[in-house]
Amino acid sequence: MPTVIIYWSSGRSETQKADVIHEVTETLVDKGGARRDDVLIIFQEIKAGDAGRGGRVLGSTLAADGEVSNDEAL
Amino acid sequence: MPTVIIYWSSGRSETQKADVIHEVTETLVDKGGARRDDVLIIFQEIKAGDAGRGGRVLGSTLAADGEVSNDEAL
Amino acid sequence: MPTVIIYWSSGRSETQKADVIHEVTETLVDKGGARRDDVLIIFQEIKAGDAGRGGRVLGSTLAADGEVSNDEAL
Amino acid sequence: MPTVIIYWSSGRSETQKADVIHEVTETLVDKGGARRDDVLIIFQEIKAGDAGRGGRVLGSTLAADGEVSNDEAL
Amino acid sequence: MPTVIIYWSSGRSETQKADVIHEVTETLVDKGGARRDDVLIIFQEIKAGDAGRGGRVLGSTLAADGEVSNDEAL
Amino acid sequence: MPTVIIYWSSGRSETQKADVIHEVTETLVDKGGARRDDVLIIFQEIKAGDAGRGGRVLGSTLAADGEVSNDEAL
Repeated sequence: MPTVIIYWSSGRSETQKADVIHEVTETLVDKGGARRDDVLIIFQEIKAGDAGRGGRVLGSTLAADGEVSNDEAL
Repeated sequence: MPTVIIYWSSGRSETQKADVIHEVTETLVDKGGARRDDVLIIFQEIKAGDAGRGGRVLGSTLAADGEVSNDEAL
Repeated sequence: MPTVIIYWSSGRSETQKADVIHEVTETLVDKGGARRDDVLIIFQEIKAGDAGRGGRVLGSTLAADGEVSNDEAL
Repeated sequence: MPTVIIYWSSGRSETQKADVIHEVTETLVDKGGARRDDVLIIFQEIKAGDAGRGGRVLGSTLAADGEVSNDEAL
Repeated sequence: MPTVIIYWSSGRSETQKADVIHEVTETLVDKGGARRDDVLIIFQEIKAGDAGRGGRVLGSTLAADGEVSNDEAL
Repeated sequence: MPTVIIYWSSGRSETQKADVIHEVTETLVDKGGARRDDVLIIFQEIKAGDAGRGGRVLGSTLAADGEVSNDEAL
């Protein structure tokens, strides 16, 4: 069953995604006792403006309080 | 840790999103005892045709039973 | 309350989505004791390259180990 | 891939859950073009006090505004 | 449609949850243009040991690297 | 931002969870370009009877069609 949903910013390459799929699956098999073929990984890419931390928009030039924070955008 | 995922229709402005991020974060701090910097808010915008209530498609001209319901589309 | 989130590949037609919304809602009413108007169904369409099973990317020509698997892409 | 997460109140019987698993899967196969063995369904049971609609707690004797609403608790 | 899922640590009181349900709903109505009766809020309480940040377990005496971090447990 | 939700069966040890948190975080840093302190991992443990694949309940003695399948229960 292990189903993994990863919310992160858009912009990763196909290679980065393939590597993450491969390695996270191996971790769940090796450390979590999962069957490899049962592991499903889904990426949910969040575009700029659609996430915020600490009350401020991430990855956007607009923030509620006038400050801009994009360090955490990835 | 508080992580908040908000599923709603696409179409809100950047200002609306920034305001929601700001105020929901403050609520979780003031009423929920969260640390401000731990609060992450993610919007998942659902486009027309990709949601339904009561068996009918929301925000679409197509519905399974011929009726159209878009009052709840937002 | 029943809220149903369905993660699947993009590409279904409006008719397919409307039919799934209609029938899943009826199942939750008939078998699960839900009130029809409380059932909300949301589709999250996952595009090619954004999901993997068994360590391999689904629905993509790129896979971490050189193999391609797209049988499960839908 | 179809992965279905159903958020609903706790309290359904094993038989109700098995029936919903069976019928929702058939719907995704018949109407959504999914492969049967790819369909995973997960129930997330929400206990009383952990959900609210319209600003009021569902399935609880406590509500922010003094009113009690539990019609939608299921 | 707005459906809000809040992942946070277990331990909040019924009053805290009711207040968060009430205020987050008002924010979505006032700032997000939602209809009040369409807003559903669901809490997912995460128990100690079932979350980690920065590679370390939150809210637990056990951490992969021997360090303990529970500041962010809430 | 990377936020990772892992749905799997209950029953893993604290050590298994800590190891998965540690290694998945390192993978997201090394292969996904994430900042370590931004990576949050949440486990959602699904108990027997609350998941099904291929139309059959996982990890339960009850299945809609009389068959029992628990190979994939983990």
